[in-house]
Amino acid sequence: MPEPVRILLFDVFGTVVDWRGSIARQAANAFGGTADDWFAFADAWRARYQPSMQEIRSGRRGFVQLDTLHRENLDAILADFGLAHLDEAQRRQANLFWHKLDGWDDSAAGLEALKSHGLVCAHSNGNIRLIADMARHAGLRWDAIIGAEVAGAYKPMPEAYRNACSIMGVEPHQAMMVAAHNDDLAAARACGLKTALVVRPTEHGPTQTKDLTAEQDWDYTAATFLELAKLMAVSR
Amino acid sequence: MPEPVRILLFDVFGTVVDWRGSIARQAANAFGGTADDWFAFADAWRARYQPSMQEIRSGRRGFVQLDTLHRENLDAILADFGLAHLDEAQRRQANLFWHKLDGWDDSAAGLEALKSHGLVCAHSNGNIRLIADMARHAGLRWDAIIGAEVAGAYKPMPEAYRNACSIMGVEPHQAMMVAAHNDDLAAARACGLKTALVVRPTEHGPTQTKDLTAEQDWDYTAATFLELAKLMAVSR
Repeated sequence: MPEPVRILLFDVFGTVVDWRGSIARQAANAFGGTADDWFAFADAWRARYQPSMQEIRSGRRGFVQLDTLHRENLDAILADFGLAHLDEAQRRQANLFWHKLDGWDDSAAGLEALKSHGLVCAHSNGNIRLIADMARHAGLRWDAIIGAEVAGAYKPMPEAYRNACSIMGVEPHQAMMVAAHNDDLAAARACGLKTALVVRPTEHGPTQTKDLTAEQDWDYTAATFLELAKLMAVSR
Repeated sequence: MPEPVRILLFDVFGTVVDWRGSIARQAANAFGGTADDWFAFADAWRARYQPSMQEIRSGRRGFVQLDTLHRENLDAILADFGLAHLDEAQRRQANLFWHKLDGWDDSAAGLEALKSHGLVCAHSNGNIRLIADMARHAGLRWDAIIGAEVAGAYKPMPEAYRNACSIMGVEPHQAMMVAAHNDDLAAARACGLKTALVVRPTEHGPTQTKDLTAEQDWDYTAATFLELAKLMAVSR
């Protein structure tokens, strides 16, 4: 019988929290209008997320925290959304929107349910402070936070997964990556980790076309964390 | 008015958990006898803690996790306690005693009470997995764990405190070190952090002579975490 999973590593943005809705709601609160008016702002901000990390993954730029990348990306899009007048304090405040993202309906209870299957760890490209603030806000009780500055690399670099396993004291096959993104799981599987897809069909809004189904035969595929906990209990 | 403390950094061994009693109790459970028979074993194991880290602080040895040091130190003392016969699996199991230390009576409730004063972070020389396992065992709900592999340095090196503040996104004066050890607090103060002594008069047993009183005018001195929370509430 194979050794059981001991460590559950969770992608956070999109998988555990609704970044798009949360950013839009906070922007409406801060700048006026309704959340509907700010989805494009959230999308534009997030669109710069992967390219800005790619500078670091490629080695063209030294490691900086995601807070720093978020701020640079914010500064780059403000003018497009009529916010070029924001002063330093307002920009700092807006950058903290990412620290106060709301969980999906099942997230807080789902993480609790999954604790019987192992240590529940945030394995995000977000920095520790960002994930810790978010945990307080959204009621997420992590056993450990393995931010990018802990793993020393941004996902999907293999080092990000390997270092997370090493830090948590397990072989890759004793850890499982839980994510709403097929590419994150593919990278984890390539490093020997087990994989669980939790589908989040509205992460990118009502017209989302990506990550609606499993693109590989992941160890588990579920609609919610609670369903994943049940599937794991059955197969145990 | 000075900026308030936002981040509370806790020493763990001795400050939050009773390593001596917990190691002795687990040894008695595993090897026979009563806890009284194993205090000398706990003391001998712990006596090698600082010297083994000193090899790393001095640069004579590259960074390794505390789990590794604990295991080397265990191997070194087993013969003195009639345990040279332990096989690899038994030694591995014994090394995990450090992952299952019990909190002091006020620890779990005290950390909860202190959460209204900031993010409650383990700032231990212990590695993340060790602190995460201990948190599950002892019901300690950390907002974040800043193990030695996160800070990249063992306390009391200044980098350990400075890097912890940087990771948590605060200036040193916005962070407070909470410890039962005057030397830990002195090192933290030298880096600009605020300081709180919580006296643990039986960490080293009933005849303890060290760290029974404040050796400097720390920002707070308290007998328990709950008392510290009350003192902080009054001065807020």
